[in-house]
Amino acid sequence: MNEVQYWVNGRQGALVNAAERALQYGDGLFETIRVRHARPEYLARHMQRLSAGCERLKFPAMDWALIRQELVKLAGQQEDAVLKYILSRGVGGRGYQPGPELEVTRIASIHPLPRWTSDPEQNGVRTRICTTALATQPLLAGIKHLNRLEQVMARTEWDDADIVEGFMLDHDQRLIEATMSNVFIVHGRELLTPELSNCGVAGVMRSVILDLAATLGFKTRVQPLTLDDVRASQEVFICNSLAGVWPVVHIEGLGEFGIGRITRQLQVAMQADESEDNGNWYIT
Amino acid sequence: MNEVQYWVNGRQGALVNAAERALQYGDGLFETIRVRHARPEYLARHMQRLSAGCERLKFPAMDWALIRQELVKLAGQQEDAVLKYILSRGVGGRGYQPGPELEVTRIASIHPLPRWTSDPEQNGVRTRICTTALATQPLLAGIKHLNRLEQVMARTEWDDADIVEGFMLDHDQRLIEATMSNVFIVHGRELLTPELSNCGVAGVMRSVILDLAATLGFKTRVQPLTLDDVRASQEVFICNSLAGVWPVVHIEGLGEFGIGRITRQLQVAMQADESEDNGNWYIT
Repeated sequence: MNEVQYWVNGRQGALVNAAERALQYGDGLFETIRVRHARPEYLARHMQRLSAGCERLKFPAMDWALIRQELVKLAGQQEDAVLKYILSRGVGGRGYQPGPELEVTRIASIHPLPRWTSDPEQNGVRTRICTTALATQPLLAGIKHLNRLEQVMARTEWDDADIVEGFMLDHDQRLIEATMSNVFIVHGRELLTPELSNCGVAGVMRSVILDLAATLGFKTRVQPLTLDDVRASQEVFICNSLAGVWPVVHIEGLGEFGIGRITRQLQVAMQADESEDNGNWYIT
Repeated sequence: MNEVQYWVNGRQGALVNAAERALQYGDGLFETIRVRHARPEYLARHMQRLSAGCERLKFPAMDWALIRQELVKLAGQQEDAVLKYILSRGVGGRGYQPGPELEVTRIASIHPLPRWTSDPEQNGVRTRICTTALATQPLLAGIKHLNRLEQVMARTEWDDADIVEGFMLDHDQRLIEATMSNVFIVHGRELLTPELSNCGVAGVMRSVILDLAATLGFKTRVQPLTLDDVRASQEVFICNSLAGVWPVVHIEGLGEFGIGRITRQLQVAMQADESEDNGNWYIT
């Protein structure tokens, strides 16, 4: 598969109404799901976050059985792919006011897996620190909404293909995430990841790793982190639903990091874990 | 005219590509222009802000002569209407990264003028104060970008049709704007309006009023303002490109305000001023 395919409200085709609120205001949510063995990986977790987002944005009640069915059906068409799923609040409304008559629009697309230039899972990735800071907005923090200009602007800061990711701080110099992934650091036998109540996206893979780490007997802490905390760590890795876990071997301005044993242990454990959530999605 | 009409890159029709970055990330800008006597009112100012937005978001070089031509042509089809004009960074790119190959998509629409229930220009409007706060993000402040979830969320806070607008504060309790308009208060013979370097949209009508007030001999100040400053003012009004100047006669929790002489003087002056910018747009 080389082409991207689209479905709007279940009908194949890439055309949407220009009055769609996702386009007019970024008024919507999305998920980026890894399709593995023709199944949407970690579907239950993706649906949980989507549902939390709908609640936060005060979307009308959704037909979650239909959404689950659609995601499973679309994933079933590919062995290995990316399934992106957008919910837009609908077409129209009176300016910013949504109005009660709106019907949520589902925009699904299937993409080929990104081709990474090296083997980042094995060899680790080089990263940098972005100057674009994330704004503090508790109302929108954690959920995966469509207002992504901060990430777009951060990603315009570099075009060196050797640099895979850029870390993002808030205006108080706290580390929050990277442009398309979450961040973990290792201190001793503890895994630390930034607290995301003021900004950032609470990634599905981040939640998988927090659970997995606990199962493996590592202590985990979700708390405010600074670059000093990163500097003092033995291992650094980033994660998202497509990449899994990528060791960070270099941060521009901060120096080199080794690929550590805990990162490797998590990578191995994750491969064993994959079938679990795939098996569980249909009973939630 | 009752129907909304759309044009995508100059061709009539309301369908856009689902891969449009305006839809995927809110990666774009917009203007809402009043069409009066079949001309786009304050066109030069709208184009200036759009151009400032393109620069801030690092859009590729644009054909501004084409854009001006398009706006004039579309406005020419209606005597009195709303012309909304969206620039999306284009279709695709590699995730958040725009990539060099993108071509900006122009999405224009013509809408009938909103029908206001009363005569707000004459009688003034009732307003409230929103609990949704605006995040501090200097990178996006002032420009009219498509990441508008904060305004959408603020507008979901009420559905009482008697309340026309909601004031928005930042997280430090400074007054910034209202959901779809800018705010002015009058202290003595001074006009004050919030400073917008951290958040908010620098409205075209706001800039018209600042110029007009100076011409009329009023002192103007752009500075941080609080609700205490509003409470202490003799006149309060809101403004935007469609409404012009609307006196605020009530703010929920703050009390009643009279419609003052300076507000009325600005309304009158603005009517005389309209032909000026309409005459000037083609020489910029």
